[in-house]
Amino acid sequence: MYLEQINAPSDVRRFNSEQLCALADEMRTAMLNRLSKRGGHFGPNFGMVEATIALHYVFDSPQDKIVFDVSHQVYCHKLLTGRQAAFTDDERFGEASGYSNPDESEHDFFKIGHTSTSVSLACGLAKARDLKGESGNVIAVIGDGSLSGGEALEGLDFAAELGGNLIIVVNDNDMSIAENHGGLYDNLRRLRQSGGKCEQNLFRAMGLDYTFVPDGNDIGALIDAFTAVRGCERPTVVHICTEKGRGYAPAVADKENWHWSGPFDVQSGQPLCDGGDNYHDLTGRLLRGLMADDGSVVAITSGTPAVMGFSADMRAAAGRQFVDVGIAEEHAVALASGIATGGGKPFYGVYSSFIQRTYDQLSQDVCINGSPVTIAVFAASVYGMSDITHLGIFDIPLISNIPNMVYLAPTCREEYEAMVRWSMNQTDYPVAIRVPGDGVNSNRSMPIADYGRLNRSTVTHRGNGVAVIAVGSFYSLGEAALERLRGEGIDATLINPVYLTGLDTELLDSLTDDHRVVVTLEDGILDGGFGQKVAAYYGDSGMKVLCRGLKKEFIDRYDVDEILRQNGLTAEQIAADAIKAL
Amino acid sequence: MYLEQINAPSDVRRFNSEQLCALADEMRTAMLNRLSKRGGHFGPNFGMVEATIALHYVFDSPQDKIVFDVSHQVYCHKLLTGRQAAFTDDERFGEASGYSNPDESEHDFFKIGHTSTSVSLACGLAKARDLKGESGNVIAVIGDGSLSGGEALEGLDFAAELGGNLIIVVNDNDMSIAENHGGLYDNLRRLRQSGGKCEQNLFRAMGLDYTFVPDGNDIGALIDAFTAVRGCERPTVVHICTEKGRGYAPAVADKENWHWSGPFDVQSGQPLCDGGDNYHDLTGRLLRGLMADDGSVVAITSGTPAVMGFSADMRAAAGRQFVDVGIAEEHAVALASGIATGGGKPFYGVYSSFIQRTYDQLSQDVCINGSPVTIAVFAASVYGMSDITHLGIFDIPLISNIPNMVYLAPTCREEYEAMVRWSMNQTDYPVAIRVPGDGVNSNRSMPIADYGRLNRSTVTHRGNGVAVIAVGSFYSLGEAALERLRGEGIDATLINPVYLTGLDTELLDSLTDDHRVVVTLEDGILDGGFGQKVAAYYGDSGMKVLCRGLKKEFIDRYDVDEILRQNGLTAEQIAADAIKAL
Repeated sequence: MYLEQINAPSDVRRFNSEQLCALADEMRTAMLNRLSKRGGHFGPNFGMVEATIALHYVFDSPQDKIVFDVSHQVYCHKLLTGRQAAFTDDERFGEASGYSNPDESEHDFFKIGHTSTSVSLACGLAKARDLKGESGNVIAVIGDGSLSGGEALEGLDFAAELGGNLIIVVNDNDMSIAENHGGLYDNLRRLRQSGGKCEQNLFRAMGLDYTFVPDGNDIGALIDAFTAVRGCERPTVVHICTEKGRGYAPAVADKENWHWSGPFDVQSGQPLCDGGDNYHDLTGRLLRGLMADDGSVVAITSGTPAVMGFSADMRAAAGRQFVDVGIAEEHAVALASGIATGGGKPFYGVYSSFIQRTYDQLSQDVCINGSPVTIAVFAASVYGMSDITHLGIFDIPLISNIPNMVYLAPTCREEYEAMVRWSMNQTDYPVAIRVPGDGVNSNRSMPIADYGRLNRSTVTHRGNGVAVIAVGSFYSLGEAALERLRGEGIDATLINPVYLTGLDTELLDSLTDDHRVVVTLEDGILDGGFGQKVAAYYGDSGMKVLCRGLKKEFIDRYDVDEILRQNGLTAEQIAADAIKAL
Repeated sequence: MYLEQINAPSDVRRFNSEQLCALADEMRTAMLNRLSKRGGHFGPNFGMVEATIALHYVFDSPQDKIVFDVSHQVYCHKLLTGRQAAFTDDERFGEASGYSNPDESEHDFFKIGHTSTSVSLACGLAKARDLKGESGNVIAVIGDGSLSGGEALEGLDFAAELGGNLIIVVNDNDMSIAENHGGLYDNLRRLRQSGGKCEQNLFRAMGLDYTFVPDGNDIGALIDAFTAVRGCERPTVVHICTEKGRGYAPAVADKENWHWSGPFDVQSGQPLCDGGDNYHDLTGRLLRGLMADDGSVVAITSGTPAVMGFSADMRAAAGRQFVDVGIAEEHAVALASGIATGGGKPFYGVYSSFIQRTYDQLSQDVCINGSPVTIAVFAASVYGMSDITHLGIFDIPLISNIPNMVYLAPTCREEYEAMVRWSMNQTDYPVAIRVPGDGVNSNRSMPIADYGRLNRSTVTHRGNGVAVIAVGSFYSLGEAALERLRGEGIDATLINPVYLTGLDTELLDSLTDDHRVVVTLEDGILDGGFGQKVAAYYGDSGMKVLCRGLKKEFIDRYDVDEILRQNGLTAEQIAADAIKAL
């Protein structure tokens, strides 16, 4: 066993080429152990085993600094930098996150989970090195899928002018999460086919030196290539071609679905948990119906088609009515604005964490222009992704404070579907819809409204004394709190606010007649959010307002129940606090 | 006079080549009239006269749709699309904004004022056309300076795959606002030098067809080039070389300072108003001192070096301690994080309106990583830029709700300088500083604190009954309100909150002893801002809170006093409202 003998990454240099190949096998076995039981980013890591060995063979981490884009290739790096046990010992999985993390190791320089950042961050490390007169190589590792992101392209453009040592390893596995999209991928294809020698070369056109490695799973060839650029005095791209999913047949056969995997049976490759009903598939079905009825409906994704429930077959069937712009969130939003202005009906589905890339496009390209786009914001919830880089708890302050935007918070599938249908058939407003994060709940009694009459909330139960305004995914929490209050003899009012971008001031005014306490519940951070608007509205009245939501902080791999309790968001706590305030 | 004969843009076709040249002269005279009296974007418009004539000669606007990036070339277009009077008649200047504007003309498709958006927006128009089975050319006009922006690069990458008709006119005047920065500009230079025939071609590498026009001020050559691509069935770049400032000698001689100009004397080119003391120059002086003391201090700009008071000479003198990344705000922020992580001391100066591009980088690249960057946010004020696309009233909700960020609001130059010095010499926090927007006020009595003791507000006058919390630029408004209250027999408390990212809860608690009303004053929109946090904090107390700031709306070319009055932000209104609430 070679993996066990590695205490520092430089230990890989003690092995001959045969032993290095055996090490690669052991690393895949270790990753298979963790990923089959816990899930994670499968394909990119399985493809990068050899390159990671070669990087640590040639460079001296941490004096030489390697920055991994998105962290989608960082498991191999973790295996060689003192974190093997988090892969081989089931009891210790929790010791390593799924992303690069300086808290875990001196060989990690940033917490990274969004794409396309590595070149810019590495430029910064190189610039600091040069300002301080230090030495050492700085290496950015970036996948081909990440290249289309604006931040990566800005970084590549700047790198040439930075001067000095900078090595950009382009890990080209000819895949984003799904297939790549964009003109630059045609250039990558031609570079692969010509052995790096075709007429046009995007990297050289950006002013960068360039080296091509045809087999990015050949440790010897990689060591030679990295050795050749070590200590280079100009920014240099090393373009390596790897096989996504290498070493595990099901992942090689179906690269898109094995980009990320939940727990699975190693023999068959079959998932161990059934996904069940979800808003991704539901959205896909809804959109396909809308597309069939109207040829100007177009679904847009920025590299994550599964978020809208579109498999490869469904994308092909949708033809020109489905657009994958690649990882290019800014372009996706501006494109949607252009389509809407031209009379089309764009629907953009995106994770809450990634819409953060688009504040300016939402404001300038969409909202100033009043473009009637529809944006569905997924995993926007404490129940969403729990990694520090993928939190879905910031989109309310991000989106709801932009003028002209209508941000809707459905509480159930019936409301969600009605909102999508309304939005896709109106031309008055830019609309974002916060897809519920607490599973697909059905509630046939929830009133469906004409959402064009802005800022009309729905009172689902009229009581007195206490009013609970429960936003979106937290509507059921509001129901539970009401139940608790009822047990204490209080017949509280329950309100579904429907809108995050404006208050139903008529309703709020009417509450002052027979209510003394208003509690707001929102599935996101409190700062800049919905509840604070309610508190400010009642600021000069005698109404007491309790805002309940999450504290403004980056949380990481949290337990949902624990986080809710810490923030006073259990039904018991809400009821008790309301009673105390009465 | 030919300009007078143009009622529709197609009227340019009635003129022969000699007459078109005369028309170009008349257009420059018209622009000179407006710009010398009112100011505006000078250089790019003076360079684009001939190309705009040629565009309207060849294409049929509005069936053919032209989208102008940043709108920096849109004056010429306005002159040919029914808005001449806004240039030739001093009484009617107000009829045209400085940016493209669909409210003014059917020949404008978007309100545009941020860079790098035209390709994506044009892709959207083209996609809508194709979905609906319509016809017509779609043309994006983009300056070379805008090409380095992530949104533009994402758009170029996507365009090739879009297919169908799309024409991208690259207006290459070899300048951004200042000189260009980035590897792609070396490629543009080689394309210019080789007549478009050099080995590497960024546009072809992105999968786009390409045509080169060496003299972009030659109407005949432009008409030929545009005619050749009219109706093209693949996305095509037409790279034209124009002279920035063409036709006005001072603007040709000093392209950077004539990118934009205030009112000036036509004969001498001398400005008619003296700028006076300002935070740009003050920041430059401060930074040059810090740089001299510490070689790891580095100032970063994204294409607007004047924002930090750095002229070309000063940039040269600063050497590697001054970095212009070109128009690439996302990269600028990530670069700063990398530099800080590597032990350098980055300072990024940026306009409030443009930091909107960087929410995700502030959150992911900087704040999750706790990188000690210093970001100075300029023109973040109702007193800042008043065009709808350049408002400085949204950065408080944008920045202050990101965890780990410390957002400071200095009230005077002494506090600003102390904050910059503190921030540049600490390594604990990412820091943003909201540069005062109400001119350079000196206040030697304002206490200077250790800003590392977070969220300690400054009580500058302790009274009772009413407390006014006056943020940053609105501190002097708070003083004026106090004066009014004093006249009514009320000795109010005045507080400089210092921090926008957290509350001084100890102080707020202490106010409940002898205050009944708290008024918050903030120079930005209320939604998601500072005052609402105060209101929420006091939500379950008896304290009345009046939040005063701007309504969440896009305002355009407003009168500051009128906007303040509409939002209850005069000293009289504040005092009256406070008394009413008592």
